[in-house]
Amino acid sequence: MAEPSPTAPQSYLSLVETCDNFSPARSAEKLATWRLAPGPSSPAIGLLRPSVVLQLINENKGTPDEQKPWSFFLDDTDKPAMTFAPWVDTPAKRTAVMQEMLERWRDTGLYPNVIGPRKWRGEMYPIYRNPFGKNDAPLEEAGDESGLNYAFRMERAACALFGTVTYGVHMNVFLDDPVHGCRIWVPKRAKTKQTWPGYFDNSVAGGIPAGLGPFESLVKESMEEASIAEEVVRSHARAVGSISYFFSTSEGWLQPEIEYLYDLRVPSNADPAPFQPKPLDGEVESFELLPLEDIVPKMRAGLFKANCAGALIDFMIRHGYLTPDNEPDFQEIITRLHGRFEYNTW
Amino acid sequence: MAEPSPTAPQSYLSLVETCDNFSPARSAEKLATWRLAPGPSSPAIGLLRPSVVLQLINENKGTPDEQKPWSFFLDDTDKPAMTFAPWVDTPAKRTAVMQEMLERWRDTGLYPNVIGPRKWRGEMYPIYRNPFGKNDAPLEEAGDESGLNYAFRMERAACALFGTVTYGVHMNVFLDDPVHGCRIWVPKRAKTKQTWPGYFDNSVAGGIPAGLGPFESLVKESMEEASIAEEVVRSHARAVGSISYFFSTSEGWLQPEIEYLYDLRVPSNADPAPFQPKPLDGEVESFELLPLEDIVPKMRAGLFKANCAGALIDFMIRHGYLTPDNEPDFQEIITRLHGRFEYNTW
Repeated sequence: MAEPSPTAPQSYLSLVETCDNFSPARSAEKLATWRLAPGPSSPAIGLLRPSVVLQLINENKGTPDEQKPWSFFLDDTDKPAMTFAPWVDTPAKRTAVMQEMLERWRDTGLYPNVIGPRKWRGEMYPIYRNPFGKNDAPLEEAGDESGLNYAFRMERAACALFGTVTYGVHMNVFLDDPVHGCRIWVPKRAKTKQTWPGYFDNSVAGGIPAGLGPFESLVKESMEEASIAEEVVRSHARAVGSISYFFSTSEGWLQPEIEYLYDLRVPSNADPAPFQPKPLDGEVESFELLPLEDIVPKMRAGLFKANCAGALIDFMIRHGYLTPDNEPDFQEIITRLHGRFEYNTW
Repeated sequence: MAEPSPTAPQSYLSLVETCDNFSPARSAEKLATWRLAPGPSSPAIGLLRPSVVLQLINENKGTPDEQKPWSFFLDDTDKPAMTFAPWVDTPAKRTAVMQEMLERWRDTGLYPNVIGPRKWRGEMYPIYRNPFGKNDAPLEEAGDESGLNYAFRMERAACALFGTVTYGVHMNVFLDDPVHGCRIWVPKRAKTKQTWPGYFDNSVAGGIPAGLGPFESLVKESMEEASIAEEVVRSHARAVGSISYFFSTSEGWLQPEIEYLYDLRVPSNADPAPFQPKPLDGEVESFELLPLEDIVPKMRAGLFKANCAGALIDFMIRHGYLTPDNEPDFQEIITRLHGRFEYNTW
């Protein structure tokens, strides 16, 4: 595949807008809310495009005495919403209903650019009752959900079909000293990657699968993607916040994302060898230790994966490189990188 | 005045909610938008409660040939809005109209708890065309506005009457070493302060007046409030982001605020004396160097000024003390501390 082509230098806000490029309230296409249970008091867990709403309604064809898995309703303010049917009332049942349906959609060629055989990930992602709030309600049925407090699990690739929030971890491994300034380990994504081939990335980045917490996901990804040993991550990685943004693909699929951020600063008196990332699983072509001033032009030329540019911009804000005195879009950038996913679309 | 009384330990989210306690969209009282010019394309610069709208309409009483400074209109979607009359079309004219009116309101006893003689600050605050975006439109008239790019200036105390965004700087001066852990210099506000007497504060905090940029305001406040020399701040303070939240007073006045945040870490090998804050202008009763683990219980007991608790919580997030693994409200806290001020109220 081709290398990405550099653009003319973009502003930092423009880079953020590439990543946070969708507002449900301003969507040209009308969207329905996906709720866990009927009624507007049930939290929204996703957003559905018209074609998906019709497909779900189509699922309910059949004889009148069959159990139908979906309900369509209008809420108190006449906004359209979909929900599981009342009998689909446990995490295990929801997971099973989704899995059977999605595998059938995949095998019959529905939405091939999202869940086709080449897009299917075979990874289960958690769908939370409330993507922002405490998810501490007891499970109706712990069972195969390992006691975790999400509403159900779903194939990763399908999340974009339903506009459900996905969660990830992004870490910058960096050195900072008076002689060289700030230098960050920057990977280049393999040219064979399905998404963003050949683009630059954050030192370690990956999605959080069902059953793993954020830090444990970071430990796992650090080894799998960058060969950084578990004890190095546990001793030196530090949680530093998150970014959240609403991304829509070029085909209009909806990917609201929350990325938990970590800094791993290589101590100035330490042997740098254990901190040096190396490709392991083929997802990364190479790692390079680049001064921040060399990274910025690459980022502004659009050569970083969009959300990795967002994480780098947050790094530059937290470390004093972008300030309210030197960046005219400072406040707009900060609030766009920490968006709430209000599912008020009508 | 009395010392503040400790509350039962509050969650971090509850502390944030004390500071971000208002949502225009969910306001019980209907609010009008204050726009710079008629028409919904002109950016909102404030929110007006019904009593202020009536007061502004009352300003326009008089003979028909008089120049009236205010216009009331309904926008395209029939939302009520106030604006300056077309002839009030330069920063200097807007500043003059506001100043004459506010001094008259003060002298005739209107809104005594907001702009009465004891509340009046005698400090001019900038009102920007767009509180979040680039404010780089050329001034219609530079004149007495010193070439700065705001729409006009207004008495600080009056900002809460009009729901205009105010800007400030907050800095934590801290030491961090393996022996003592993280320790922060914490001031106690003077018992004679009009707002939040006797509460704990951030090491340095203050509003940004018209004519000063964020960092220059920080330099000024560091000396005035904490006796920290200019060269210490210039060499060691680092911009680390911002928090933004919508605060409403107990009387319902509206104070959306953006606070630019700074960290000043005392280098571990430096003489600590120049970094030690000392009261200077009488606004602070005393400074104490407190371990973070002693600060947290005071904060959770409600003994910090609300927005200073917000800045401390942001500090704890950036420095790895609050993480997505140990704080169930992590994402809710982050997005609430980085709110956008959407003035969609109807």
